[in-house]
Amino acid sequence: MIAKRRVAAVGYGLTRFGKREGGLRDLAAEAGKATIESVPRLDRKEIQGFFLTTTDGEPYLTASVAENLGLRPKLSSKVENLCASGGMGITIGYAAIASGLLDTCMILGAEKMSHLRSAPPMEWDFTRGGIMPPAVWGAIYARKHMQEFGTKEEDLALVSVKNHRNSSMNPFAHFQKPVTISEVMSSKPIVTPLKLFDCSAKTDGAAGVILAGEELARKFTDSPVWIAGTGQSSTGATFGNVNPDYTTWPAVKLASRDAYDSSSLLPKDMDVAELHDAFTINEIIEYEDMGFVKKGKGAEFIRDGQSEIGGRIAVNTNGGLIGAGHPIGATGIAQSVEVIQQLRNEAGKRQVKGARNGIILNLSASVSTASVIVYSDRK
Amino acid sequence: MIAKRRVAAVGYGLTRFGKREGGLRDLAAEAGKATIESVPRLDRKEIQGFFLTTTDGEPYLTASVAENLGLRPKLSSKVENLCASGGMGITIGYAAIASGLLDTCMILGAEKMSHLRSAPPMEWDFTRGGIMPPAVWGAIYARKHMQEFGTKEEDLALVSVKNHRNSSMNPFAHFQKPVTISEVMSSKPIVTPLKLFDCSAKTDGAAGVILAGEELARKFTDSPVWIAGTGQSSTGATFGNVNPDYTTWPAVKLASRDAYDSSSLLPKDMDVAELHDAFTINEIIEYEDMGFVKKGKGAEFIRDGQSEIGGRIAVNTNGGLIGAGHPIGATGIAQSVEVIQQLRNEAGKRQVKGARNGIILNLSASVSTASVIVYSDRK
Repeated sequence: MIAKRRVAAVGYGLTRFGKREGGLRDLAAEAGKATIESVPRLDRKEIQGFFLTTTDGEPYLTASVAENLGLRPKLSSKVENLCASGGMGITIGYAAIASGLLDTCMILGAEKMSHLRSAPPMEWDFTRGGIMPPAVWGAIYARKHMQEFGTKEEDLALVSVKNHRNSSMNPFAHFQKPVTISEVMSSKPIVTPLKLFDCSAKTDGAAGVILAGEELARKFTDSPVWIAGTGQSSTGATFGNVNPDYTTWPAVKLASRDAYDSSSLLPKDMDVAELHDAFTINEIIEYEDMGFVKKGKGAEFIRDGQSEIGGRIAVNTNGGLIGAGHPIGATGIAQSVEVIQQLRNEAGKRQVKGARNGIILNLSASVSTASVIVYSDRK
Repeated sequence: MIAKRRVAAVGYGLTRFGKREGGLRDLAAEAGKATIESVPRLDRKEIQGFFLTTTDGEPYLTASVAENLGLRPKLSSKVENLCASGGMGITIGYAAIASGLLDTCMILGAEKMSHLRSAPPMEWDFTRGGIMPPAVWGAIYARKHMQEFGTKEEDLALVSVKNHRNSSMNPFAHFQKPVTISEVMSSKPIVTPLKLFDCSAKTDGAAGVILAGEELARKFTDSPVWIAGTGQSSTGATFGNVNPDYTTWPAVKLASRDAYDSSSLLPKDMDVAELHDAFTINEIIEYEDMGFVKKGKGAEFIRDGQSEIGGRIAVNTNGGLIGAGHPIGATGIAQSVEVIQQLRNEAGKRQVKGARNGIILNLSASVSTASVIVYSDRK
């Protein structure tokens, strides 16, 4: 690791998440325009890098979206890593600026879930047997955590209740209404012990951020949010290979360790965190593997209200994937937008007072790939 | 632009190009294995970055290919920019290492053209009218160049003859036989003045490179090839918007200017060049817009044998897209592999004596996006 140029987020934008009319280009244009307009001191023609993060398979979509937005980028490409596309895209933009290759870069995530082809995206993963839906691995991880550490279905439900409460304060979220524990517990069984409200839903949406090099950041905004550190890990691709212990996720541990190390910050320094709650059990295991609590103590963290707004580390203040929605390729960008808003004191009703450091965890496919980014209001 | 860590290519690998059995994963595995084995001093588990460049739309293909190859990357993603995917992918890998985020990175391009969906990839480009095949824009550019500068169909044919001669010396090339001018001139008309042998063909293939940071490069190889500079430009996405003068291509001029500037090298310093000869006219216009000759003098450059092996700048020594083949997302990687081979004196029968500096130009979609990389055997 060598000395690096610092990089800051200087702007952000979102579409409303949910079932949306129009196509992916419309969503991308809406979020792209909002992102560009959030930095009025930056001429869109001066945005040097442009990465579109999406699982949409159409070739040359990036240039098409860039042209629609009036961009004239140098380095540009689609970046795809399934549900972790957004986190990887921001990391690539960060590297391009830190290296000196670019001064500014926009990363835009967009997904129109109803446009996804009908075939399951991981039909090659024979280690799943014939059972492809992601809720199956979610349920296996949940059952094992319950057996091993005494985690209860009610603990999972608490995650859903918290995240729906947070999303009810987020005007961009897919789900706008709080839910009660009994509503979660009595919701439709998906794969036992996971019920409907334990699962993230198909969501259309788009989100963008603009990054800039350190000498320029304050020219573009009075409140830059710095990328303090990053970490990534891909331990494999197939369910059967990546997490032999089920309740410990090596990709998350490796990526978060690198992110903490490179940021010189510790889990206890985090005020806010956007964790990848594809299922409620994820958030509980992630409390542990991100170092917020010891292994096996994740359920206590939610029971004791430590991940609430006002708790020790406010987790998924935007509602997370369960409350705000999970537009696959845009999720890592939306997570970053939430942390940036929190650190700029722009999160409205869900603002965490005095938030100065935040972290995102963005995952792919049965937790085989993880991308972690630490943000700070301090350079 | 700030001071940067230098980055070198330390290994490379290819599949044979052409009509190939098997799927994209097979091609990727074959080239990936060859690439990894070209650097015996590097354990594959130590490869920290992995980018798959392809237009294949399948999500999470990158992790799947990485798992097949036994990689455990940190930063990884698919990188897609249509025909310029390869050049952009190498540039992203370069930036990730130059920034200090990674020490090593593999970029693997793979394309199974017969797997491409049947719909034209740019059906949204209404500025093309109903006329979608790329040969239409190739023909328009050719006609205008002929009108304006007196370029002749025979000049176009000379490019095809040269590139087929070169590919006949490249055991990995799709087309293994030389062709004569009269064979080119009498080949099947595609879009006048372009004939069959003026056009690149659908080709299956894969190619890989491994990059490393400067302190490590000589640990992995005795003959590192340095990335001396890069440039990229995307002037739009649609045919009607990007090249109003037809015979001058702004994306190529902008990208090559940045590449020369960042490398402190000039066109005259280049010994070898891999240019994007989707059509023969491309190579002639590219001689001009890459600064090898003045505007309008491209035909003279080929007529005078200046782009032959042994000429002033040997162009498309591997056969180019026309002779070696154009497996879209792998093309920029294969171009780089050829330049690396030349600078390592490993190009066999087509070796350019004493080659020390080389350049690639990798384009997308009616020359709306360009990626240029300058390589040198000197740090």
